[in-house]
Amino acid sequence: MSVNRGTGTTAFGGPPLEIDTRPAVLDQFTVDETGRTGRRPRGIVYPTGVEEVIAVVEWAEATRTPLIPRGAGTSLEGHLLAQRDELIVDLSRANAILDISPVDFTATVQPGVTRTQLNAATAEFGLQFTVDPGADASLGGMAATNASGTTTVRYGGMRANVLALQAVLADATAARFGRAVRKSSSGYDLKDLLIGSAGTLGIITELTVRLHPIPEWLRSLRISFPTVADAVDASLAVMGAALPVSRLELVDAPSMAAINAYRGTDYAETPALFVDIESSSAVAGTADEQEVQRIAQAHNAIDIATARTHTERHALWEDRHNLFFALKAHHPGHRFMVTDTAVPFSRVAAAVDTATRLGAELGLAVSVAGHIGDGNVHAVIPYTDASYAAAQQFSDSVVRHALAVGGTATGEHGIGLAKKKYLRDEHGAAVDLMAAIKRAIDPLGLFNPDKVLDA
Amino acid sequence: MSVNRGTGTTAFGGPPLEIDTRPAVLDQFTVDETGRTGRRPRGIVYPTGVEEVIAVVEWAEATRTPLIPRGAGTSLEGHLLAQRDELIVDLSRANAILDISPVDFTATVQPGVTRTQLNAATAEFGLQFTVDPGADASLGGMAATNASGTTTVRYGGMRANVLALQAVLADATAARFGRAVRKSSSGYDLKDLLIGSAGTLGIITELTVRLHPIPEWLRSLRISFPTVADAVDASLAVMGAALPVSRLELVDAPSMAAINAYRGTDYAETPALFVDIESSSAVAGTADEQEVQRIAQAHNAIDIATARTHTERHALWEDRHNLFFALKAHHPGHRFMVTDTAVPFSRVAAAVDTATRLGAELGLAVSVAGHIGDGNVHAVIPYTDASYAAAQQFSDSVVRHALAVGGTATGEHGIGLAKKKYLRDEHGAAVDLMAAIKRAIDPLGLFNPDKVLDA
Repeated sequence: MSVNRGTGTTAFGGPPLEIDTRPAVLDQFTVDETGRTGRRPRGIVYPTGVEEVIAVVEWAEATRTPLIPRGAGTSLEGHLLAQRDELIVDLSRANAILDISPVDFTATVQPGVTRTQLNAATAEFGLQFTVDPGADASLGGMAATNASGTTTVRYGGMRANVLALQAVLADATAARFGRAVRKSSSGYDLKDLLIGSAGTLGIITELTVRLHPIPEWLRSLRISFPTVADAVDASLAVMGAALPVSRLELVDAPSMAAINAYRGTDYAETPALFVDIESSSAVAGTADEQEVQRIAQAHNAIDIATARTHTERHALWEDRHNLFFALKAHHPGHRFMVTDTAVPFSRVAAAVDTATRLGAELGLAVSVAGHIGDGNVHAVIPYTDASYAAAQQFSDSVVRHALAVGGTATGEHGIGLAKKKYLRDEHGAAVDLMAAIKRAIDPLGLFNPDKVLDA
Repeated sequence: MSVNRGTGTTAFGGPPLEIDTRPAVLDQFTVDETGRTGRRPRGIVYPTGVEEVIAVVEWAEATRTPLIPRGAGTSLEGHLLAQRDELIVDLSRANAILDISPVDFTATVQPGVTRTQLNAATAEFGLQFTVDPGADASLGGMAATNASGTTTVRYGGMRANVLALQAVLADATAARFGRAVRKSSSGYDLKDLLIGSAGTLGIITELTVRLHPIPEWLRSLRISFPTVADAVDASLAVMGAALPVSRLELVDAPSMAAINAYRGTDYAETPALFVDIESSSAVAGTADEQEVQRIAQAHNAIDIATARTHTERHALWEDRHNLFFALKAHHPGHRFMVTDTAVPFSRVAAAVDTATRLGAELGLAVSVAGHIGDGNVHAVIPYTDASYAAAQQFSDSVVRHALAVGGTATGEHGIGLAKKKYLRDEHGAAVDLMAAIKRAIDPLGLFNPDKVLDA
């Protein structure tokens, strides 16, 4: 097997697979969505299926070429940046929906299928794929980072929603992990080991995921509170009452101001909750909504806006989903860091306060939004070259605070490159076990080296 | 460190820990709940905490003594039976509830704490631990087998409900896995690797589990159908409507006959569903219950019994929970096998029919009950020495049928000894990866050898 780097073409034993080595193309892979940069990779291949991935890994093994698997490229933690002479295995063209089984509530897809692509296909069956990280990420990438998002409070993240995987391993064979059933106690849970391993243990080539019924009745609320503590306490009360909320999002006052500026709205510039309530009937749903409203009022709610129709609901959530763009517009000329800590519920209000106070101390225009129903808090930090050090210090302090109270450095973005330094603080001696497993599964260290663990 | 086997006492470096070697005691550990037998173990130790477990593992490592961790002893698949000269590490005395945090919806317990013990302690906070395998198992044992049960359709099994673990590893150190938060994407998911590993990778010494609010409103239904197909179709319709059921159990006609004989009732001896509906309010719950009843009637329900009060609900579920005892009473002089396959929903009705037909062909009085909301089907097979071969053939055929349609050999009981022969049929080349991980984590093979994987 040989690579003709000049022509950008190679023969892989199996079908020839083109390696794109054009410098202008490679340069596009040296920067990620956060502005973080890596080296120029060795090349890019675009396999369309498992056989081509096997051919790539065979060649990588023979030539000792490290590989970076890639989906839609929406990583926020440097998972996709080359650190040495890696080949990027871009799976965006392996994007076929292989099967939808409405009776089984499952779909089987290639890794490059995005969540909106899948949801467009399942809607006709009254079914949805519920993991929603905001970005239109690929399912393979979402599995690799154990992504979750706004609906996780009700439906769980990727581990709860991926039933089975196929992955190509370091010996260039494809293996299957998990079975397409709701439960199993058979053997070691390698499916969940691969999920969240960020392409460091294998390249995901197929996924069977759970689908959920699209609810009969849906209502969305935007509730303004005088303080973060009130909003958090209301959230905990809603969860304590086991109300069927499928989204429970905190947006702080600076974020609401950015939304007003970006969207031309005039919402109260105080902390708000964005809430979805789902039900199987209007009668049950209306009762649940009244209870959420009662709890909000008992926690000093200033204003409650209700979105009933699809159009109203879409508009309400557009405000939340556009928050990052609103903040970008609000802070022109800045780059952004986004923290991703998750903490126990009893620590959420303090985590938000700590972020706000730290931002003020460091002269940073920090805003906070969180998946409050999961204790997952994002602080968004606009920074320039001049304030880079302060932003770093902020991010570091926030992570260390979360770890000190029993939390995690990353609720849903993954370790990648950016959070590696916290791995041992969070996991202690378990890191040695992770390293032993990495060596056992990928002895040549070909799969996404330098990510999650030190190579 | 030395063991005085004659006196049953040893000094472990740390505090002395008695090894019970009395033959009459050891004999009690040679048979499990199904009647399956193993060798007489080397001895029994009863550590009460992590330090004592570390001392035991230090000694085991020094003396190359294999260990079998044990909780309440309710395994159905031979996990706890000695195959060589193992020491049983009985954790039933490590049974302290270390912390209940109502705001965080968590509890932290030692591994010997049983689920009823924990639920008795959390009830005053309006919270419950929801994994219910029927038996009053220990939480450590339930984690080791990835147990689930009747409430899994709504709340998930052990993986979804254990947030963090402490375990003593083969190098006699204690490590922590996972964090006590709702979500994390940090590092490899070793918490879920340990869950379901049946004590073959480490000895669980502490667990932090999720608690859920006890619902405001609960109603239980027993619905009789003319056929299994009607009952299964009704179940799928209930799930397709996203109705808030927390139990959804199928009990077949022979099982209902056994219940009638055992409990003196006169229920229709046709397939039935036992259903729990949970809600945050009576208004919402009543609407949900009406919808369940409407679906049942649309699927030819013969009779619907409703239990409203705690007493009525308890009585209704006692019938289901006593099913195994009813079957034992119905078949005096028999031992029992219990299959545990889980299949995709589209295959559930066929799985039940296959079991019924096979039982008739083989002359076995098979009855079937299933966690239908998870596709998990138990066939109970009474047998004698004369029909042992037929029972074995039945069980084998049921597992092979499940595997052929994409299912799993064990939905919730685990592989243990009894299902090892199906591991490669179910997982293919992934079994080699499981073995590589076992070697990497337990190189001396001291932890529950011969279980899950061949030693």
